[in-house]
Amino acid sequence: MSEVDLIPEAEDDAAEQGSQLDRDDRLKPEFVRNVLDAVEAGDDEAARALVEPLHPADIADLFELTPNEMRAALAKAITDLLDGDVFAEMNDYVREDLIDALEPHEVADIASELDTDDAVAIIEDMEPEDQREVLRALDPDDRAAIEEALSYPEESAGRLMQRELIAVPEHWTVGDAIDYLRGHEELTTDFWEIFVVDPAHKPVGTCQLSWILRTPRTVSIADVMKREQTLIPVDMDQEEVALRFQKYALISAAVTDTGGRLVGMITVDDIVHIISEEAGEDTLRLAGAGDGDINEPIGLTVRTRLVWLVVNLGTAMLAASVVGMFEGTIAKFALLSALMGIVSGMGGNAGTQTLAVVVRALATNQLTSSNTVRMIGREFRIAATNGIVLGTLIGLGTILIYGNPTLSLVFGAAILTNNLVAGLAGVLVPITLERSGVDPAVSSAVFVTMMTDCMGFFSFLGLATLAGLGG
Amino acid sequence: MSEVDLIPEAEDDAAEQGSQLDRDDRLKPEFVRNVLDAVEAGDDEAARALVEPLHPADIADLFELTPNEMRAALAKAITDLLDGDVFAEMNDYVREDLIDALEPHEVADIASELDTDDAVAIIEDMEPEDQREVLRALDPDDRAAIEEALSYPEESAGRLMQRELIAVPEHWTVGDAIDYLRGHEELTTDFWEIFVVDPAHKPVGTCQLSWILRTPRTVSIADVMKREQTLIPVDMDQEEVALRFQKYALISAAVTDTGGRLVGMITVDDIVHIISEEAGEDTLRLAGAGDGDINEPIGLTVRTRLVWLVVNLGTAMLAASVVGMFEGTIAKFALLSALMGIVSGMGGNAGTQTLAVVVRALATNQLTSSNTVRMIGREFRIAATNGIVLGTLIGLGTILIYGNPTLSLVFGAAILTNNLVAGLAGVLVPITLERSGVDPAVSSAVFVTMMTDCMGFFSFLGLATLAGLGG
Repeated sequence: MSEVDLIPEAEDDAAEQGSQLDRDDRLKPEFVRNVLDAVEAGDDEAARALVEPLHPADIADLFELTPNEMRAALAKAITDLLDGDVFAEMNDYVREDLIDALEPHEVADIASELDTDDAVAIIEDMEPEDQREVLRALDPDDRAAIEEALSYPEESAGRLMQRELIAVPEHWTVGDAIDYLRGHEELTTDFWEIFVVDPAHKPVGTCQLSWILRTPRTVSIADVMKREQTLIPVDMDQEEVALRFQKYALISAAVTDTGGRLVGMITVDDIVHIISEEAGEDTLRLAGAGDGDINEPIGLTVRTRLVWLVVNLGTAMLAASVVGMFEGTIAKFALLSALMGIVSGMGGNAGTQTLAVVVRALATNQLTSSNTVRMIGREFRIAATNGIVLGTLIGLGTILIYGNPTLSLVFGAAILTNNLVAGLAGVLVPITLERSGVDPAVSSAVFVTMMTDCMGFFSFLGLATLAGLGG
Repeated sequence: MSEVDLIPEAEDDAAEQGSQLDRDDRLKPEFVRNVLDAVEAGDDEAARALVEPLHPADIADLFELTPNEMRAALAKAITDLLDGDVFAEMNDYVREDLIDALEPHEVADIASELDTDDAVAIIEDMEPEDQREVLRALDPDDRAAIEEALSYPEESAGRLMQRELIAVPEHWTVGDAIDYLRGHEELTTDFWEIFVVDPAHKPVGTCQLSWILRTPRTVSIADVMKREQTLIPVDMDQEEVALRFQKYALISAAVTDTGGRLVGMITVDDIVHIISEEAGEDTLRLAGAGDGDINEPIGLTVRTRLVWLVVNLGTAMLAASVVGMFEGTIAKFALLSALMGIVSGMGGNAGTQTLAVVVRALATNQLTSSNTVRMIGREFRIAATNGIVLGTLIGLGTILIYGNPTLSLVFGAAILTNNLVAGLAGVLVPITLERSGVDPAVSSAVFVTMMTDCMGFFSFLGLATLAGLGG
């Protein structure tokens, strides 16, 4: 019996899934290759047969894993598997690519299958003219819903919400609500809570479906619902919406217009992507990598990153000019030039640590004006401790290696100074930017490393010059 | 009529909420101060009255915004408002602090109110002896459930899942299920889907509550449920669970043991925190800030950061030794020492950009072995383009400022070389670490900046020496 036989025999479905996905739910490379080989060979039938058992989210992944130039051919081969759910799950850039390759009436067919929020996601990035054509091809109800959604700002609750929801009046019983749901085929089936509204269509309560199912038919909805509810204003930014869902552990929430009337519903599955994106974005922004999507057109990526690198070139020249001030000292004692980078580099690292913590705490609403002073004190103590430990370590190492007590003192003192600069800049820069309404993740790193570079060179070379190390 | 009067009069509840929360759902600093002033003045009644209208998530926030040394006093003042929901929403470190201050039987009272997953979160970090005492104080059913959960590895599905769920046999009708839910008071009310199981208690399908509500009583559950389901193995890591919820837009999912039997349920509201944490963690890890929680005890924070800084000290010394190789050249032409930092710094920034994108793409399963080669090619093209643009810019600038064509060529060529090194290292290092089973967010940055520092110095000073710039 070979070792492979020890693996218990899987059921049909599992075996089939096993041939496509690896342990981490990613499509296996050989599966992707097989599909693309079939497409390249013109064997659409074989490609279709391979892709058919996949979940829409996996078909979307397949397109992301396919090289740009082959995506249109793949779409052609498996066109009847390409439903709205696949597009809804697809990366924005990949979707835009594919949508560009489709006729407006084909896009309209896909959009009409979807909830408003997913349809909007597909249509919002199209050229205005194509957008108008798609809208014309939609039936009037869908068109009105999408046009209204498009009238709200990008990344707002109004774009995210779906208009398909269940709202019932307060005076109904549980039985009335169940009969209504059973009797109206046209209602959505995609809901987790029902909203209770007053005659002016303002929400007065929310009712989990499980509460309805566990309650006798004769009980009034008003007695089952929860009156304390979290409402989302239609113009709220999606980042705030995501934080609110997270904080109050919401599954769905009512969206209200400026008059307080119920106009839509947001469900957590649409928010999950946003939570993940917003949390991950800080990683990319702090590094100056923009949105950093690997499917972004390469020209856009180059421009985004280049802007940041040019800004950094400016700050690096500023730091170099600080070094330039001490050219005379360096010419006489070239060892300084080898060591000065350690001071600025260590400061930069310490500053980046603090910065990452502060940016994250700001993004999650953990750091507010109530605890800012405490946070500054906390980071100062950390910076002082780390600075003293590192400064001592480096000072001792310098004596051992170079046997120069003056150099050792200067080096250690510069490290300590720059650690304190790093700690304070790491807290104060992002907090100041946030208070000024600027996203602290975008430009904090430039300022912090500028300060640690300049102060690193200045403290080390300056102290060295004062101590007469240049001779 | 003053401008303030133009704001429409809010309802009682809204006005009350308005006095505590700012626009971003954060507790207002003056509200926090008022509560703490009342606690300090010993006026527990006033503190209680202020805190009472808050949502449990906001009470949890209040504790996080309270300085460590006042948390116990606040807990004492509002003790009857401190229910399980508040503890479930609280930051891990703050919760541990408070739990330490409570008697085991008080902890048991709180734990017994909660679903298994929340109770486990409270108990898992206690000292073994206290844990045993709390478990003894629980009633046998709760104790068994928690002990079983604790037997699964930390951060696994077994710890996250709740055992309270609804499972029904396949042969039931919709009416049977509704009658069962109405007739059994002891069942959980916290569910969004019901699971359908075979006689061996293996899941065969999942049924959204909305589908049940929209279907006549006589229809069989087997005809309403979805057979294609996403099952979570009990030992799956929480990061994988989160990615699976995200990918397939799940609201809840069945957890199965190694025998395939249904043992628990995970709901999306418990996963939302994990999605946000896991996505944000990369920001902190890339910066070498560990978990970077602002509530972490300061000693732990210092140690985490110091380890990273000491590692960086090692790589900085390596880079300094590269500079040391060229001491003679620098002594003769000290300007080089001012400029060499620009080359290494620009390379470091370009490397960090690539690194952030690659780490993020790995974390979201966007970068797999199917598209690794494409990704390397993509980053190489970006690095080459950025390197040529920056190299040219810097070369021209150098001629203008210093009028030295040799220096200009050397500088530009070094910038281009180091950009290519940065682009390749930024992709290859995290991918190699991931393939070796190491979290690429944790140690990639050390390696990448080590390479860009060393290669930056080596290419610039080496080329300068070859070109005879040292004289």
